[in-house]
This record gives sequence, C-alpha cells and structure tokens, in this order.
Amino acid sequence: MKKVLFASTALIATAGVAAADSGVNFSGYGRFGIGYQEDRVGAVTNIVTPSNTATSATSVVVDTDDAILVSRFRLNIDGFTETDGGVRFEGRVRLQADEDSSTGEANSAGLNGARFSVIYGGLRVDAGNVAGSFDNLANYYGNEVGLELFAGQYSGVNYNFLAYSSTGSGANAVFFQYAVGDFAFGASYDTRTFAVNGSEVSGDRWDVSATYTFNNITAAVAYGQTDSGVSGVSDPSLTVLTLGGEWGDFGGTLFVADDATEVTATDGTAWGLSASYNLGAATTLLFTYGDGNADADLQQVAIGAIYDLGGGASLRGGIGVNDCDICDSQTVADFGAQFNF
Amino acid sequence: MKKVLFASTALIATAGVAAADSGVNFSGYGRFGIGYQEDRVGAVTNIVTPSNTATSATSVVVDTDDAILVSRFRLNIDGFTETDGGVRFEGRVRLQADEDSSTGEANSAGLNGARFSVIYGGLRVDAGNVAGSFDNLANYYGNEVGLELFAGQYSGVNYNFLAYSSTGSGANAVFFQYAVGDFAFGASYDTRTFAVNGSEVSGDRWDVSATYTFNNITAAVAYGQTDSGVSGVSDPSLTVLTLGGEWGDFGGTLFVADDATEVTATDGTAWGLSASYNLGAATTLLFTYGDGNADADLQQVAIGAIYDLGGGASLRGGIGVNDCDICDSQTVADFGAQFNF
Amino acid sequence: MKKVLFASTALIATAGVAAADSGVNFSGYGRFGIGYQEDRVGAVTNIVTPSNTATSATSVVVDTDDAILVSRFRLNIDGFTETDGGVRFEGRVRLQADEDSSTGEANSAGLNGARFSVIYGGLRVDAGNVAGSFDNLANYYGNEVGLELFAGQYSGVNYNFLAYSSTGSGANAVFFQYAVGDFAFGASYDTRTFAVNGSEVSGDRWDVSATYTFNNITAAVAYGQTDSGVSGVSDPSLTVLTLGGEWGDFGGTLFVADDATEVTATDGTAWGLSASYNLGAATTLLFTYGDGNADADLQQVAIGAIYDLGGGASLRGGIGVNDCDICDSQTVADFGAQFNF
Repeated sequence: MKKVLFASTALIATAGVAAADSGVNFSGYGRFGIGYQEDRVGAVTNIVTPSNTATSATSVVVDTDDAILVSRFRLNIDGFTETDGGVRFEGRVRLQADEDSSTGEANSAGLNGARFSVIYGGLRVDAGNVAGSFDNLANYYGNEVGLELFAGQYSGVNYNFLAYSSTGSGANAVFFQYAVGDFAFGASYDTRTFAVNGSEVSGDRWDVSATYTFNNITAAVAYGQTDSGVSGVSDPSLTVLTLGGEWGDFGGTLFVADDATEVTATDGTAWGLSASYNLGAATTLLFTYGDGNADADLQQVAIGAIYDLGGGASLRGGIGVNDCDICDSQTVADFGAQFNF
Repeated sequence: MKKVLFASTALIATAGVAAADSGVNFSGYGRFGIGYQEDRVGAVTNIVTPSNTATSATSVVVDTDDAILVSRFRLNIDGFTETDGGVRFEGRVRLQADEDSSTGEANSAGLNGARFSVIYGGLRVDAGNVAGSFDNLANYYGNEVGLELFAGQYSGVNYNFLAYSSTGSGANAVFFQYAVGDFAFGASYDTRTFAVNGSEVSGDRWDVSATYTFNNITAAVAYGQTDSGVSGVSDPSLTVLTLGGEWGDFGGTLFVADDATEVTATDGTAWGLSASYNLGAATTLLFTYGDGNADADLQQVAIGAIYDLGGGASLRGGIGVNDCDICDSQTVADFGAQFNF
Repeated sequence: MKKVLFASTALIATAGVAAADSGVNFSGYGRFGIGYQEDRVGAVTNIVTPSNTATSATSVVVDTDDAILVSRFRLNIDGFTETDGGVRFEGRVRLQADEDSSTGEANSAGLNGARFSVIYGGLRVDAGNVAGSFDNLANYYGNEVGLELFAGQYSGVNYNFLAYSSTGSGANAVFFQYAVGDFAFGASYDTRTFAVNGSEVSGDRWDVSATYTFNNITAAVAYGQTDSGVSGVSDPSLTVLTLGGEWGDFGGTLFVADDATEVTATDGTAWGLSASYNLGAATTLLFTYGDGNADADLQQVAIGAIYDLGGGASLRGGIGVNDCDICDSQTVADFGAQFNF
C-alpha cells in the first residue's frame, strides 16, 4: 500500500495538462494563533459543592480567558464539469472547523449548504447557499484586519443581507452576475415564507448592484430590500457605495451606506475606510475604520500586518478597539499563522 | 502556493496508468432547478403580534411556495485497496446536501453511514449501510422521471426493504451477490433488536433475489420478509418480479409486486411499467406508471425528458400526477440541470 | 465526463515528482468484521402493547446481540504547505464512521475538531485538537489486540489525559515535541474554564515527557497533572514509565504507571506488558496484559493475530477477558478485515 498524495506539484509536473474538463477540486486554508478579547465571557459547566465529583451539572455564563487559542480549518470541495458547448457547471460544499470563541474550547468541523454555479463567458448564475450583491460587492469588506479579520469598514451596517454561510445551510436563493467591459452587474433574489399569527406571509429579499472600473479605481453601488411581511411595518433596506483604488504599494477603500432596518438604535448613515501598504517585499500594513451615526452602531478602529513566509503561508496579526456611543469600549487583538492549500 | 487540481484529464494524460492499487476516489453529481408540487406545505417560524420584532417564536405548518429551488450535491468518498491475491476492498461514505422540500430553504450537507465491500471475481459482499436484494434488483426502479426522479413504477409498494441510506446511518447489515454467466443471485440479512413492553425481541429482516439475462432481456425476482417480533402479528413480506429489455432506441420495464405489510390500506398487488426512447443524438424521452390495488396505494403517472449537454451535464425535467383511491390528486413537475463529476 | 481517479499509483507513475509543496492529502483505513462482547446491552425502542403498530414509543435498555457487525471508516484530510524557509504547516480534520457498539446498528460518519501543526527540523508544535505527552508517548499503547484494539497494557489507568479525539471536538490545546539525537521531549498545555457554585475556576492540565532510544530499546517517562479547581481537592496526576524493544521477529513492551486521580477505587499502581511475534512472512501473533492494584482497576488479558494480505489489507482478530476485583468477568473477541488507503 502506497500513500496517496494529492498535491499541486505532482499535477503541474505532468506538462501539457492545461485544463481538466471534469473532476473535484480541493482547496482551503488553515489558520491558528492567539486571540485576545477584553472581558470575554462564555457559558461553562457549573458544579455545585459540596459534591466534589466533576460530574457535569448545569451551565453558567462566567468570565473566560481573555486570550485563547483561535483557529480555523477550511476546505472547499468543488465538483465541476464543462459541457461540449463550453458552459461550466460547479457545485461547492465547504468543510470548516472553528474554535468556540466564547469558551476557548474547540468545535468539531461541520459542512455547510451547497452552492451551484453555471458560468458562460461573462455570465454567472449561482443557486442555493449563495452570496448576494452586497456579499459579492467590490470593496465592501475592504482591508479587514487581523488573523481573524476581526475589524472592517462596514462595522456600522446592521442590515441582514444575503450572504454565503460557511458553517450553516445559508439561504436557498439565486444570484446573477454579468460582466461586460469595465462594467459588472449583480442581482439576487431569496424567497422566504414565515407566519404571522398562524398565517403565511412572504419575507422575500432582493438586491442589485453595479460596478465600474476606470484605470486603477473601482466604484460600486448596491441596493437591497427585505419584505417585512407585516402590514404597517416598512421594508428594511440598505444602500451602499464603495470606492477602491491602488497606487503602487498603497491601496485604499472608502465606504458609505444608508441603513434603514427600521430599528432606531442602528438606523442611519454608516461610513468607513481602509488602507493597505506594502512595506518591502514581504510585509503588508493594514488599517481599517468603520462607524455609524446611530447610538448602537459599532465603531471599529484597527491596525494590523501580514508577513509573507512564501508557499502560501503568512504570519498575521492586528490590534483594535470596538466601541459605540452607548457601549463600553473593548480592546481586541490577535496574532498567528495562516497557510493556504 | 499553487492551486490543487484533482481532475480526470490530468490523470488520464499520464499515459500508461492503467489501474491504481490503493487510494481514494471522489465522484458524484450536482443538480439544481425548479420543483413544483401542488399544495406544498411546511413548518415555518410563527410570529405573534402585536410584537413587531422578527424574533423567532414558535413553528406552524402553513402553505409554502408550490415552486421552489430544488438541489442536490452528492460526493462519494471511496477508499480502496487490492490485495496481492486480487481481492478488492472498498469503503464508501457519501456527503450529500439537499434542499428542504417542505419549506424551500436549504439544508446543510451531511455524511451517511459507511458501506464496506469485498469483491473477488463475480462475488461481492457488502457490510454496513448496504442496499439489499430489492434495492439492488435489476429494473426495480425502471425509468424514473424528472430531475428529482419524483415518479417510478414501484409507487404501489409499501414494504420497508433494506435500502442504502444517502443521508442517514442506514442499517448495519450484510449483502451478498454472486454472478455466474447469465445468472446473478443476491441475499441480505439485517439484524435489529427492539423491545416490547420492556423485553427485547428480534425484528430481523432478510431478502433473496435471482436474475437471468437472455439476449436483450433481463428477468428478476426477489422475496423479502421482516420478523414482526410480536406474537400473533404476521411477518410483513414483499415479492417482486421485474422484466426489462432494450430494442435499439427503445427501452422498457415491467413490474409486478405482492405487498404483504399487514396494513390493509396498502396491502395487495402493485404493478407498473416504464419506457425510454432516444429521440435523436441528445434527447431521451421517459414515461413511467405505477399503481396498486389497495385504497391508499400511491398511483404515479409521469412523462419526462433528458437533454444531454455533453461533459456529463444534462437538462432534465418531468411532469406527473400523484393520486390514490382515497386521496386528492396532486400535480408535480420539475426542470433543471444535472452535472456529474 | 470521465471518472475521477485519485490514486497513489497514478502519481507515482509521474516520475520525478519527489515532493509536493502544497496540497491536500487523503489517507485512512476501513475495517469491518464480527465483534463479540459477553452480555452486551443497549438502549432500543420500546413498544407498549396492545398497540400493534411499530410506532416508536420510548427507549429501554435491554440485552442486545452479543455478536454484532463492527466497522470503522476513517479518512484523514490533511491540508499542507511549506514556506520558502522550509517550515511545514499542516491542518488535519478526520472523517470517521463507527458502528454503535451498544445496539449493533450503524452510526453516520462525523467530523472531528481540527489539529494544526508547524514542523521544522526536529521541532513540532501542534495546536487545537491535539494529542498530549501520554497519547504521543512511545510504547504507551504497546501491542493492542484485536480488529478493534479492544485490549491494551494501559487498562489499569484511569487518569483523563489530553488525547486526540477522532469523533469529537477534542481539547483546544498546544503540544510541543523536540527530537535531538537519541532523545525526544514532549510537553502539552490545555486550558479549561469551568464554574463552581457560579464562579469561574481554572481546570488547566499539562504534561511532559522524555524518551531515550539506545540500540533497539526505547525508554520513556511522562508526568501529567490537572488542576482540580476546587480548594481542598488535590490535583489528579499520572506518572508513566514504558520500555519497548525489538529483537528480530520478537517485540515487547513493559508499562508501569502511578495513577493519582483522587478516586480511591481506581488509584494506585497500574502495570502491563505486551508482545508481538512474526510467525513466517505474513502472520503476526500478539499478546497483551494490563492490570492495576485498585478494586475497580480494569484487568485485560488478550491474544490475537494479524494475517497480511498485501496491498495494505489484513485479516485481524483477537480474544480476551476483561475483569476487575469487584466485577464479573467478561469475554470479548473479534475478527475481520482491515484495509489501508
């Protein structure tokens, strides 16, 4: 019995193999390190004395360690084929394990909901557990900071848009994307049925986006809305405008959003920016800032760095502060290694 | 870091690689499309007003969308090796994600119970989550119709035979199969312990089959029985006879069964037939009909088509009616794409 | 569409492919056979008559079959890369399915918690779901007996040391190992927070080990301790000394431990030994014995054999007796096939 080795070099060594027309791709990354979160709390086993046996009794929320071992293992499983006419079909399921960030213990790996894609030229249609127009929007996330990407320019946004779920089943929706020249358009639709006082109502949500790239700058705008399903309650909506550009070693993004979730404490304008700077051959510095005008909008400010080790591995870390007008501020930080495979 | 590409063309390009003696195979398919089911119902979240927050409250069964996004992602994971003596060992676990057909939402992917196989010449022994003699019987399923194979000639059968479970743990049973010349024989045994009034009883089930192929026709017969475990209650049983043949572009199957499940509403004779016809190079037309003589036996009639796109991808769809003597009839239909990998 | 075949021979055929620098490895084994356990009990469905329908009612513990179909499917999924500086990063998740040993039914496959590794020269650091110093200790397990490895020399040990979990999330801990010449050192640390009467306490555990190899003999010693977290309760601890050697066809191990778990019925000295003997080219005979001086310490005596079929497949079996000073003795045995892939 010989060991099975499925590795990139092996296949690249078979020169002349330009493209496979059907098969299964495996890719992903691992990351692990130390994560610090001020005043971390979590639910742990509670033992009531005088019983001195360690039998699990009940659960209680207590202060857990501020610094814990954080980690993620992500494996993308992509089945694909290409028709005689050049249409590509893909199906993806993701296998992912994360630590339990409240207690610092480990979680078992899990599988998410499947996403299916049809790709032909500049047209792409996704179905199932899909990302919508916001989740796919150029520069929506900007330069997130830290091994765990714990801070981003979008922190003031509270609208629940259609997003790809890495650890759950996600929505069962459809996303369209069409790219032509410097323009790209996106749209998604997600049906949902729920009940109010026992009668079914529709809580469908949809979003659209447009993106334009000119020289080294990309501008994007997106709008999305969710049927509230309840008479007299306005439909929650979100409008986002982003700008991103690169000038040599410097990259930056700007973010403005109007958040109408029908919740006063978080509605209104959200804004943010982020920047990256390549310091020498292997080091990248990162900065991000996000905020909103409502009392409970989360403000995030963070700086971080990535040091490239080659081979798809890097050291990453960051430090930042989470705050809001009516919150206590909280310091967060992390440091560790990430490796792609 | 280079991307990992595990693909068929790459390995086929390494000429002279006839057979691997140990390793892991990945194969499967994705399918997605629109599924229609008249009067579809499902359990959804129920919100009680005047609370106008969208907090999940209780669950209630309501009418959901008749037309939903249907999908499946299936990946077979097969570990295998071959001994010096030419005996092949295999172990399979299946990873599968399906939509929730009651609500139209997505489900996360899951893993099923493992199946183990020993294969030597015409002899095959399966253990674990196995398919029994019916599930393996030639022409039992015939030509099922639709993207989701929603109709089949076996619709009047209600006996719970040993079947491979794609999404659950399945039974922990043994299946034997022996092929010699034009004949093939199968047998399975599945042990089960349960309790009646606190005392353990055996609810074992077994089945046997014989198959004979002459020219382009295959005839098969199978019988199976389950210990009821309760004194005075007869053992449920099932007898099935199938015939299948191919004549050029036409293929057809016949199905007759005697269903003795000790439930009057579904017992008695079940019958069905199915047909397929290749219309030109890429299109296949399908028809299936299944019925039974008991009041609650499900009658299914459906027509469908498959259009081959090449590369293992196809467009598929069907429309049919489900009915029974004491039921309201229900129209079902679907259409979508399937791609193998 | 061509079938995807990921197999060792294929890649070995591409001569000159010495080492891949990034990718995903799949490896594992399957095993299945008959397992016998005297007086096996399990929780099964209980039906209360006069209802004669097979509707699941409640669960009750009854005698189940002593001889059941046992099985395991194990797949290791290893993502890896190597930096320009020669540091190797690895992440592993294991997919495993086992039978339910109490009822003889099958379980679905599951995924465990992820383990991450950094390897450079003789240094290895593991994080996440790791094995600690005992679980990694040379000759700790010795020659375990049977298809299911149902008996081992360590049977008298009751300390709950840090171990790799194949079917659960495991601990979220760190393990260090350093090998230099004939010496190797190991250490692990596992943080845990729980609560006593609602207040958080630390139940951290740690262990250290040292191993020395001289000629064909390996000696190893390890010590580990767990914070009890409760004032007035001593910290449970374990000390282990092992010796192992090989002389031609004969291999043997010795095991002594001091078990201080603060539970009188199982504390004290534990000891054991094991042996293996290669009888001809394909057969290996195995023997193991483990015991302890406390009343409830488990004594295990077992003999077994492995017959190599080539290609990574083998037939394996064993028979043994479990006993303790205050227990009824129990005969256990198994026989079946195992195949690596």
